[in-house]
Amino acid sequence: MNQNELLIIPLGGLGEIGKNMTIFRYGDDMIILDCGLAFPEEDMLGIDLVIPDMTYVFENRDKIRAVVLTHGHEDHIGSLFYLLRQVDVPVYGSRLTLGLVEGRLKEYNVSAEKLIPVAPGDTVKAGLFDIGFIRVNHSIADALAVYLKTPVGVVVHTGDFKIDQTPVDGQMIDIHKFAELGDKGVLVLLSDSTNAERPGYTKSERTVSEALDEKFAAVKGRIILTTFASNVSRLQQAINAGDKYGRKVAVLGRSMATVVAKAMELGYMTVPEGVVIDIDEINRYPDNQILILTTGSQGEPMAALSRLASRNHRSVELSYGDTVIISATPIPGNEQSVARIIDGLMRLGVDVIYERSSGIHVSGHGSQEEMKLILNLVRPKFLIPVHGEYRMLKCQEKLAEKVGLAKENIFIGENGHVFAFTATSGRFAGKVAAGKVFVDGLGIGDVGNIVIRDRHQLSQDGVFIVVLTLDKQRGCIVSGPDVVSRGFVYVRDAEILMNEARQIVKEVLEGMTNGPVTQWAPIKNSIREALNRYLFAKTGRKPMILPIIMDV
Amino acid sequence: MNQNELLIIPLGGLGEIGKNMTIFRYGDDMIILDCGLAFPEEDMLGIDLVIPDMTYVFENRDKIRAVVLTHGHEDHIGSLFYLLRQVDVPVYGSRLTLGLVEGRLKEYNVSAEKLIPVAPGDTVKAGLFDIGFIRVNHSIADALAVYLKTPVGVVVHTGDFKIDQTPVDGQMIDIHKFAELGDKGVLVLLSDSTNAERPGYTKSERTVSEALDEKFAAVKGRIILTTFASNVSRLQQAINAGDKYGRKVAVLGRSMATVVAKAMELGYMTVPEGVVIDIDEINRYPDNQILILTTGSQGEPMAALSRLASRNHRSVELSYGDTVIISATPIPGNEQSVARIIDGLMRLGVDVIYERSSGIHVSGHGSQEEMKLILNLVRPKFLIPVHGEYRMLKCQEKLAEKVGLAKENIFIGENGHVFAFTATSGRFAGKVAAGKVFVDGLGIGDVGNIVIRDRHQLSQDGVFIVVLTLDKQRGCIVSGPDVVSRGFVYVRDAEILMNEARQIVKEVLEGMTNGPVTQWAPIKNSIREALNRYLFAKTGRKPMILPIIMDV
Repeated sequence: MNQNELLIIPLGGLGEIGKNMTIFRYGDDMIILDCGLAFPEEDMLGIDLVIPDMTYVFENRDKIRAVVLTHGHEDHIGSLFYLLRQVDVPVYGSRLTLGLVEGRLKEYNVSAEKLIPVAPGDTVKAGLFDIGFIRVNHSIADALAVYLKTPVGVVVHTGDFKIDQTPVDGQMIDIHKFAELGDKGVLVLLSDSTNAERPGYTKSERTVSEALDEKFAAVKGRIILTTFASNVSRLQQAINAGDKYGRKVAVLGRSMATVVAKAMELGYMTVPEGVVIDIDEINRYPDNQILILTTGSQGEPMAALSRLASRNHRSVELSYGDTVIISATPIPGNEQSVARIIDGLMRLGVDVIYERSSGIHVSGHGSQEEMKLILNLVRPKFLIPVHGEYRMLKCQEKLAEKVGLAKENIFIGENGHVFAFTATSGRFAGKVAAGKVFVDGLGIGDVGNIVIRDRHQLSQDGVFIVVLTLDKQRGCIVSGPDVVSRGFVYVRDAEILMNEARQIVKEVLEGMTNGPVTQWAPIKNSIREALNRYLFAKTGRKPMILPIIMDV
Repeated sequence: MNQNELLIIPLGGLGEIGKNMTIFRYGDDMIILDCGLAFPEEDMLGIDLVIPDMTYVFENRDKIRAVVLTHGHEDHIGSLFYLLRQVDVPVYGSRLTLGLVEGRLKEYNVSAEKLIPVAPGDTVKAGLFDIGFIRVNHSIADALAVYLKTPVGVVVHTGDFKIDQTPVDGQMIDIHKFAELGDKGVLVLLSDSTNAERPGYTKSERTVSEALDEKFAAVKGRIILTTFASNVSRLQQAINAGDKYGRKVAVLGRSMATVVAKAMELGYMTVPEGVVIDIDEINRYPDNQILILTTGSQGEPMAALSRLASRNHRSVELSYGDTVIISATPIPGNEQSVARIIDGLMRLGVDVIYERSSGIHVSGHGSQEEMKLILNLVRPKFLIPVHGEYRMLKCQEKLAEKVGLAKENIFIGENGHVFAFTATSGRFAGKVAAGKVFVDGLGIGDVGNIVIRDRHQLSQDGVFIVVLTLDKQRGCIVSGPDVVSRGFVYVRDAEILMNEARQIVKEVLEGMTNGPVTQWAPIKNSIREALNRYLFAKTGRKPMILPIIMDV
């Protein structure tokens, strides 16, 4: 690659919602924008988290001048612990973002000495790059867009954004700065594609206030409200509505308690004296003076709301008269878990307000009109749609064409693609290593396709183990064969099956062993084949068959 | 229970979408309405199908006078094979329904001698009951509602329905019959709740024609259209649109080929001579003369559309210029699979039309206004909302209250609940056995909670097996310990771990065995505990640990 080109390399967030991470490189200077995680898809059995493949970053560790964070959501900060374990580099972000980062790093025992808070309007120097920060609106406070002054021109990255003209905290996205940058000339725009399929405008967070007020005015019993723990504005609105109608606030769920504490400490939430009470105090007040904020809006099975729905919570029990407000919509993949929780709550007699149409939730990402507005304000020469599954990136491409960008100046990329820019040109310039690294327990990257494939087979039909001890010299069975199965059949009902399986193994061995045995493999294969045939004929199932032979 | 009460017992379809089955019983006469299956939820690992617990049916097998089927969807006919294997009873349904039933029964080697076709307007006698059939609209042709004349009054079951005022086949739901029944007096209505959360009216199937026509007129290359294989009207409309623009039709996917053949044979589809071609012939025609109908609209991984998206289909390869029309919306739980297929197709350069807003799909179930209309036409004394998850049943309850039914006359039930009616009263009258029976391979009901729990553990962290041969007399190891793992760690990278694990087992045994061994269990437990501790400390994972001890 040409030393005089600016390289932009997305390592995560393209073709997916999650693990956002983008590299900007010019010569020997490199900047990392965001460092997020993704949650495992359903076929990634047993995996806890997914982080970006950082091979390229580690190969160029001496060139990294800064990490820049746009906001405090897990898909933007969640793999920072892994990077900082191996690389010592300054990390820039807003105060709330860094507050949340600090908590996460502590969990992983990673020190956080070089966290440098920045505010909208600030600029910092990192190697060749001048980095500037712009306020945007999103479903978490203190979210930033970022611009980079590079030797070939200015690059703007929107981060996650919406254009909220009446934000709850009064801090509107700085459209003037986008306009100013656009006026002076922007080489490349990287822009959020999450809601590219959605026409029109995303409603203001403030509209939620009105909907909540209406609900709060009508409800006579306790109100239990759930939303994303990190949505500080939403929590503030709920607390305000509660306060207006004389409700005390108790918080359920560790992650929400953490965020509320951090947000209050940093001044991002203001709660009147005496309003917050401990969850164990709620029975001291009448029902119409209680508001409980809880985690679990995505149907997470271990979160408080799920426990409440299954009457499985240690300190709170819901029943007729209570009202649950689900102030969130399910992320794709969580629809069924959320539906099951709603059903569970309703079975308890609880009133549940959950429809999107009731106005109790709005998205944190801008819709098509907002995307077009940013495109028109910034007027970039080149566009890289980011933060979206493939069809969302393609949707933003169509929008950009409509506002006048040439199709050849729009780059629809995949993670690991290298885009190279001069002041006048942009091109696809090859690939670097990129992909999914699985975190499973303490292991990072040690679980690969083979392990996952085995887990998949085990999950479908279980395991069938055959053990026997052979006298290697004489080729005769000393002990066994024993058979053990798990996840295959209900063993107590399967005595005949097990006995016949044992018999089949014996027959295989009698046919093969007379005299000294030199190799295990052919014996194991024959056992596996014979059992496979037999078990499938009898049960229609294909458990993983593991023959284990010991010798004396 | 009183011998003079009519018992209505839902065995499936309440609190769920799937495995619909309802029992009507008066004295010693019993009728079964529908006999469906459900597809496994994601936590039912390795399960192929779910069918209703039919204990109550088999206990009363001598009382069954008839099985009545409302339409040919799997969730209404899919567990019939299991019932008919054990019970010899006449089965009534429309011609298309029975045509589809026949095919399914053949797959299971169940004879189908007593399939008796009925048409809308027909009545049949079954024991004490007079059974009448009413035409309804749904996403499959030849769907029926059913009414029963019983000694205590008339019962109406809507089956799955919508009110399509401009149906494609010209056969509108017989609202006159519903009106007539309502005029004469109906005791109980059982009504479809699927779309109870959706306001307004469901659009007519005919509106899809217009949307398809518009798309077909615009597309220059090949068109590949996917929908539910059983949606004969939809397929007919696609073929008509294709024919209008001079396109030949090829069918991909076994289930769609079966339905198309059956529907043409029975006269439910009419295709002009020479329009249908074999899939291998498509290359003989220019792209703009090709329409391919394919299975896979729900993202099923083995279906044709999924193979096309991953360029994994034997006879068709898609690329730039092709247009895929997804004329279906994902059933809850399938959203992500469908999204992945759309992304895959777009990556190939294929144009994909998939938005609900594009008008290429309408639901087969009526929305709130249609439910209210049926309630107002039938004017039942009692209502049992059926065919829906719990919140959908509750939603229909609210609708019914709005049109004037007393809340105490609406029964929100669960599978297995017994509702008992006289000519003037209705009551909850206890429970019978009900629940999910898992079909896994050839086994029906043999996989229970223990097996599923084991599969779940195996799927998360795999299995870790320790094998050793003990001399029972002397209490010393003759062979082993050997360790084998699958789905736990990548074995080649884990030599040290495996060696240390072996060492730990040895130490456990040394501490326990000196002299004759009488019991295995304490040894196994100690091994399990020691390994559990060690492996979790080293990996953060908890594989299933299986110690297997053999003796000589």
